[in-house]
Amino acid sequence: MSSSNLINNYLQLTSRFEQIGHLNNLLGIIHWDYSVNLPKKSAASRQQEITTLSSVIHKLLTCETTVNLITAAEQDTAVLDIWQQANFREMKRQFLHASCVSEELQARHCHTVTNCEFVWREARQNNDFNLLRPHLQQVVDVTKEIAEIKAEYFNMPKYDVLIDSYDPDSSSAEIKSVYAVLKQQLPKLLEKILAKQRQEKLLPITEPMSVPEQKMLGKKIMEIMGFDFTRGRLDESTHPFCGGTADDVRLTTRYEENNFLSGLLGVIHETGHGLYELNLPLEYRNQPVGKAKGMAFHESQSLIMEMQAAKSREFTEFLAKILRDELGLRGTEYSGTNIYQLLTLVKPDFIRVDADEVTYPLHVIMRFELEEAFIEGDLTVDDLPMLWNQKMQEYLGIIPSSYQEGCLQDIHWPWGAFGYFPSYTNGAIIAAQLMAKAKEVYPDIPSALQKGDFSSLNLFLTQNLRQYGSLKTSKALLQDATGYDTIQPEIFMQYLTNKYL
Amino acid sequence: MSSSNLINNYLQLTSRFEQIGHLNNLLGIIHWDYSVNLPKKSAASRQQEITTLSSVIHKLLTCETTVNLITAAEQDTAVLDIWQQANFREMKRQFLHASCVSEELQARHCHTVTNCEFVWREARQNNDFNLLRPHLQQVVDVTKEIAEIKAEYFNMPKYDVLIDSYDPDSSSAEIKSVYAVLKQQLPKLLEKILAKQRQEKLLPITEPMSVPEQKMLGKKIMEIMGFDFTRGRLDESTHPFCGGTADDVRLTTRYEENNFLSGLLGVIHETGHGLYELNLPLEYRNQPVGKAKGMAFHESQSLIMEMQAAKSREFTEFLAKILRDELGLRGTEYSGTNIYQLLTLVKPDFIRVDADEVTYPLHVIMRFELEEAFIEGDLTVDDLPMLWNQKMQEYLGIIPSSYQEGCLQDIHWPWGAFGYFPSYTNGAIIAAQLMAKAKEVYPDIPSALQKGDFSSLNLFLTQNLRQYGSLKTSKALLQDATGYDTIQPEIFMQYLTNKYL
Repeated sequence: MSSSNLINNYLQLTSRFEQIGHLNNLLGIIHWDYSVNLPKKSAASRQQEITTLSSVIHKLLTCETTVNLITAAEQDTAVLDIWQQANFREMKRQFLHASCVSEELQARHCHTVTNCEFVWREARQNNDFNLLRPHLQQVVDVTKEIAEIKAEYFNMPKYDVLIDSYDPDSSSAEIKSVYAVLKQQLPKLLEKILAKQRQEKLLPITEPMSVPEQKMLGKKIMEIMGFDFTRGRLDESTHPFCGGTADDVRLTTRYEENNFLSGLLGVIHETGHGLYELNLPLEYRNQPVGKAKGMAFHESQSLIMEMQAAKSREFTEFLAKILRDELGLRGTEYSGTNIYQLLTLVKPDFIRVDADEVTYPLHVIMRFELEEAFIEGDLTVDDLPMLWNQKMQEYLGIIPSSYQEGCLQDIHWPWGAFGYFPSYTNGAIIAAQLMAKAKEVYPDIPSALQKGDFSSLNLFLTQNLRQYGSLKTSKALLQDATGYDTIQPEIFMQYLTNKYL
Repeated sequence: MSSSNLINNYLQLTSRFEQIGHLNNLLGIIHWDYSVNLPKKSAASRQQEITTLSSVIHKLLTCETTVNLITAAEQDTAVLDIWQQANFREMKRQFLHASCVSEELQARHCHTVTNCEFVWREARQNNDFNLLRPHLQQVVDVTKEIAEIKAEYFNMPKYDVLIDSYDPDSSSAEIKSVYAVLKQQLPKLLEKILAKQRQEKLLPITEPMSVPEQKMLGKKIMEIMGFDFTRGRLDESTHPFCGGTADDVRLTTRYEENNFLSGLLGVIHETGHGLYELNLPLEYRNQPVGKAKGMAFHESQSLIMEMQAAKSREFTEFLAKILRDELGLRGTEYSGTNIYQLLTLVKPDFIRVDADEVTYPLHVIMRFELEEAFIEGDLTVDDLPMLWNQKMQEYLGIIPSSYQEGCLQDIHWPWGAFGYFPSYTNGAIIAAQLMAKAKEVYPDIPSALQKGDFSSLNLFLTQNLRQYGSLKTSKALLQDATGYDTIQPEIFMQYLTNKYL
């Protein structure tokens, strides 16, 4: 029997997953539209529609035909090439996660989170925690229900199965050991940096920049970074994100007239995500193996651009030149040195997405501890505001004066994304590991960034990470790209120390 | 046995069609996105994705479960109320149309038209008919293939089954008898109007209006017309349309800085469509009976707003006031009288969507004759440019000097919409019938329009047409709303004569 006969079951599976991929891509565009365009009173209908399409996808993924094909294909994996084998592994992973969840539970989960996310927008805008409270509790309850079933099936802690769905092969035990290092070393470093920065003179930028100018600037920087506008867009939303599909990458940011650097850094961050998506393996674009390898790696791609590349002395020189040449901004406050100081200013503050890279992990650690308590313990939404403020005081020494600045700021929990937050700090550490390695391989990276040339950095990232999709295990991908098979908090701490002290 | 048991099959059908309705709504948003937002190189992927979702819908509509439910529910129709009976009639109609088309043919059709529409955009922009030619021929071929199968099943002429899918209960024979009246009377009327208008003095508007100002003006007029922006939007696209869903109505227009009236009339036209969608029966929103009653009625709703309401002496007085008060436009060229003259200027011209209401039917008649020749005869795409120009000369006395002004102007054929064009003129005639009746019932309509008050007109249209969805047959709907059960070209001719002579 020829191998083409042998892999027939596998090929039938790929055509099924191709369909699932198409439908998931449409959901990606619909979600983007939901955040960017949706008229206020259209939300309820759209939620039902999204739930229906999610159910169709869930059914395709878990129905008897799929079960039979997976069972049959399992016999033939020896004749598959390495991409096909990895694809089968990822198919099975998706199948097992999905088949733990009944059709009814899947639909209920989808409806609950879609609704809660919409309520969150109004609650956040009006600083109204009570509006969100019952909806968020429903999200916690349905998330726990799913976590319990999966925990039993996979024989893992409940919170770990949630982490696993964003960041395969990660675990709360590993994360805690990383956080132990950060919790021990970060506060001391923070103190030293604050003391040092108190000595430095910093010129604030007081002139507003119009939104059209900010858009123009953002798009220019995206092009310089290598973003392909024939396969993607930049728009606006309350919470910046990278959505859409790998062939139609939809980035968003938000603009404040009095703080153009914030919107611009948002653009740079999301462009990092977008470049990962745009450079995934074309041939497997709609197959599980063609997808990004989890959210920690995804965040490493946004953070290497935002924190490592953009917030460097070299790039800020280039940015100052753009501001001068394109927008006529010639004041001393727009000098490369001053912009570098503004972008690397460390200050414990309330909003995670605007946080500097030194205090950012502390925002993540407190969220990690809260969500673990939601899922493993009996923390309820009623207790959230109080605990939030306690932890802010404990880790950052400040207490929010509003819900907007506190527990209403993030979209993640309303959207049901429990277990996502650790990816940010894992991603920041991976980014530090990647940049260290990239500079070894391409020593011209810093001088290139000073000329607005991202080609060596992009080449390194595509060669070593983006192009592999989900081919490798997380360990192997990290090992091959950075020389370490685990997350190295010491490298991250060393990077921060060198940069800030 | 209680009636609730009896209607169990029907209720199961409704839940199936509710799902289909949800998925069709998502396709509506995806199509809107395709026309408004799509990055150039994302088209190929999106076409595959749209084809997959269309196939899923087609399968839900034609699978064995649906067949069995329809057969079973057929026995119980006597116990259904009139809405349920009409819903079952429409379900069966959709089912029969869909089940004529195999899964393979449906997917091929969907892919062919989605691709051709995208090619058309580039071809139109570059005046490149050769680019479109092979793609359009594929669309003609697959459309004929479907028409042949349906013609045999429904025992109707091929072109008639296509008309039927846009405008139920209409036929090419009926349309031809209407066109016979128009072809006899319109040319004479046109000559008289042109002679009369040559005597009139007309001040051209030479000052450009910026796109942001045009957007503001358009949204203001939409609000005045009763459009609910909490359930819809206005955006831009090459070809103005009304898309999205009944709960999330997405209108588009296009702006020319040197001709704001064109973009504004586009907005008013599409708002007429939008108001139909927004006022369909809420309870049946996702069921077949809750949908608009075909495209002739749909066009009647856009044309009653554009031609009957907006191009009236009363409304143009109001518009002049808005231009003066909101935009400071005080020149004589912005007087109500002059704007009325500009909006009712009759001039044989190349572009259908910009045509006046006197020459418009001639544009439609030539397209009707061409598409009938495509479907029933052996007209090929190669012969289209020559025949197009011949007919333009025959009916309008002018010959286009480019493909853009000629056979590349419309999206319909690239999109596979053969049989749609007659709806425009049927709609224009129905609009004249509706307005005559509306003024009988609410004699204050003209004086209200002079104050920018659309409430009586909206009330009449919702009470007599919009709220019924597809409850009635086309004949009954027309009879109850206008007092005639057929389309009356004489009423339309009388309206034109009164207005223009």
